[in-house]
Amino acid sequence: MAGERGDTRVAPGLVRYELLHEDAGTKARRGRLHTPHGVIQTPIFMPVGTVGSVKAVGPDDLVTLDAQIILGNTYHLMLRPGEALIGEMGGLHRFISWERPMLTDSGGFQVFSLSEKRKITEEGAAFASHLDGRKYLLTPERSMDIQETLGADIIMAFDECPPALAERPYLEASLARTTRWLGRCVRAWSRERSSLFGIVQGGMHEDLRKRHAEEVCAVDLPGYALGGYSVGEAPEAMHAGVAYSAPLLPRDKPRYLMGVGTPLDLVTCVAAGVDMFDCVLPTRCARNALLFTSEGRVTIKNAQYAKDERSLDPACSCYTCRTFSRAYLRHLFHARELLAMRLNTLHNLHYFLTLMGEVRAAIEEDRYAAFVKAFWEGPHGPRAERG
Amino acid sequence: MAGERGDTRVAPGLVRYELLHEDAGTKARRGRLHTPHGVIQTPIFMPVGTVGSVKAVGPDDLVTLDAQIILGNTYHLMLRPGEALIGEMGGLHRFISWERPMLTDSGGFQVFSLSEKRKITEEGAAFASHLDGRKYLLTPERSMDIQETLGADIIMAFDECPPALAERPYLEASLARTTRWLGRCVRAWSRERSSLFGIVQGGMHEDLRKRHAEEVCAVDLPGYALGGYSVGEAPEAMHAGVAYSAPLLPRDKPRYLMGVGTPLDLVTCVAAGVDMFDCVLPTRCARNALLFTSEGRVTIKNAQYAKDERSLDPACSCYTCRTFSRAYLRHLFHARELLAMRLNTLHNLHYFLTLMGEVRAAIEEDRYAAFVKAFWEGPHGPRAERG
Repeated sequence: MAGERGDTRVAPGLVRYELLHEDAGTKARRGRLHTPHGVIQTPIFMPVGTVGSVKAVGPDDLVTLDAQIILGNTYHLMLRPGEALIGEMGGLHRFISWERPMLTDSGGFQVFSLSEKRKITEEGAAFASHLDGRKYLLTPERSMDIQETLGADIIMAFDECPPALAERPYLEASLARTTRWLGRCVRAWSRERSSLFGIVQGGMHEDLRKRHAEEVCAVDLPGYALGGYSVGEAPEAMHAGVAYSAPLLPRDKPRYLMGVGTPLDLVTCVAAGVDMFDCVLPTRCARNALLFTSEGRVTIKNAQYAKDERSLDPACSCYTCRTFSRAYLRHLFHARELLAMRLNTLHNLHYFLTLMGEVRAAIEEDRYAAFVKAFWEGPHGPRAERG
Repeated sequence: MAGERGDTRVAPGLVRYELLHEDAGTKARRGRLHTPHGVIQTPIFMPVGTVGSVKAVGPDDLVTLDAQIILGNTYHLMLRPGEALIGEMGGLHRFISWERPMLTDSGGFQVFSLSEKRKITEEGAAFASHLDGRKYLLTPERSMDIQETLGADIIMAFDECPPALAERPYLEASLARTTRWLGRCVRAWSRERSSLFGIVQGGMHEDLRKRHAEEVCAVDLPGYALGGYSVGEAPEAMHAGVAYSAPLLPRDKPRYLMGVGTPLDLVTCVAAGVDMFDCVLPTRCARNALLFTSEGRVTIKNAQYAKDERSLDPACSCYTCRTFSRAYLRHLFHARELLAMRLNTLHNLHYFLTLMGEVRAAIEEDRYAAFVKAFWEGPHGPRAERG
């Protein structure tokens, strides 16, 4: 598969990155990502809409929150309702009534983390659905076909995300296969409306990251991602890994750090030059009563909030904080009211999206180093977060 | 308790009914109910907010839907979070951030239908919480105290709602006790901010309904309700019973039919002179995929909608119908997405509230008899509904 390494014949695709400004004191970048469904201001956090819905909120809410782009999960959607149905309904954008940009992953990550009886071969990954045990085969070609049927603006190469503690020999074989799979993805990709991003793996090994980045970036693609982070390693290791790996990706293309992370992770990895993030953290934590505020994390189900008349976050302008008390939010959670899920999710997404707005402003004004320092010393800093 | 029968010393309370127009061809009435939190146009349907939330939607949604008044459930709120906490938080309106009128029931109905080990005595009803088995005693005085602490605009007398198939001797004893309990409610009522409505019981027995209506209406109260309907009897029996009982209530006071009902029930009972309704039907059905549309009932989880690109109800202007396809609503339900609950609830409430707007317009224009006839012959008519 050395043939792919020097292959730069690939068209730039429909997505185009525009670098607006590089921060004076860090590697942070302020940019714009032009897509068929509009322009995304970067760095950006992308809410995850696993099965065709960002859990507990609607597309109208996401527009109100000014989410610029959301994710769909190929693995989940191919199982239910199936990409053929979504294709017949006019594609994922139309099916879920979302008119802004969208990104789908390749399905690989979920096959390895969720499915049953999975078996990886050179051809691809055979697995049984976690829903009903039905058997599927996902290959680079099939992933491209599914993703192009869904029709997101950005689609991801089919890769293997090896376990965090994978031994070096396994990792090397996996990386070589992922590179070969990338070649097959590129050949299968129609380039019609979706732009393909390559994924660099390599675990915590700098030499492997470097080699794989060279292999993946040798293919001229509209964007590149770092996979295999936030899969169980310590946050310090992740931060160090990303600080090393992000600069390996081309300066003139968007850099996407997959599946990351906490507010501290976002702020830190932007300083390494990352432009795009996605994570279920804000939405999943919301459904478990863990809320992110300007004063730190609040576990709203705790007894201390039973009679707390204050808003969740006095500094926050979201609907939840403008309207309700902590006491009411705690009550809703304990009464298992559906409204709890909605209000908590609205707030957490607002926190993450607003934070990224502050990140962009700090980069524009060349004060991002100070921003990161203040954030590390604040209520979402490592001591507060892990204390 | 004959003492209460002629007792008209009770102050009119803060709620005042204004009869605007009586339909020429039916007993339907168009009115206004003046409350401390604003004016309610009647006839009206009141969404139920059992535990301090109309399930799956927020107060902002209810304002968008133009819900004029919502219910709270005394039984549920006294168990969780407890009326004392809500009182400390400034009352139910403030606790749940609802600025429009509100009504609470007495707790009696839920004690008899939900609680465990309940025992009725002259004093009241002893029961164990369905949540944790904790023991409670609910009496007329306690119900008044709880409801006045919650502070709704309209509060309900503590009564017994006897089983639909109760024998006549049991029913007679129950009615006499409910009348005595009403006297105790009136004496306990502070009249400070909540207006007390009396409740007429009597099952399907016209003579008992008549006698109890005389006893209850002998107490001058701001409004009166019919209880004990829609508790298992056939719809025809309920319609006939309400047609007989509603006119027994004073013409110059609002008439509230508790716990009713289907669209057909609402349209039919308005013709008997009912002004106010509440029911969990639209919200509960929504969570079970049963949707009310201008074309009849739609069970959105059914396979026939898998690839149905049409909106749920092309005649409907709600957010759900303006935005999504039946195929997507079906997918959300099967994927158990929280958004399904929200979108279905928004639609069903919109259907019920819009229907009541059409009812009011028909009464104003003296064409309510024709409206009822057309409704009975339409997709929500008895053949369609029970077919």
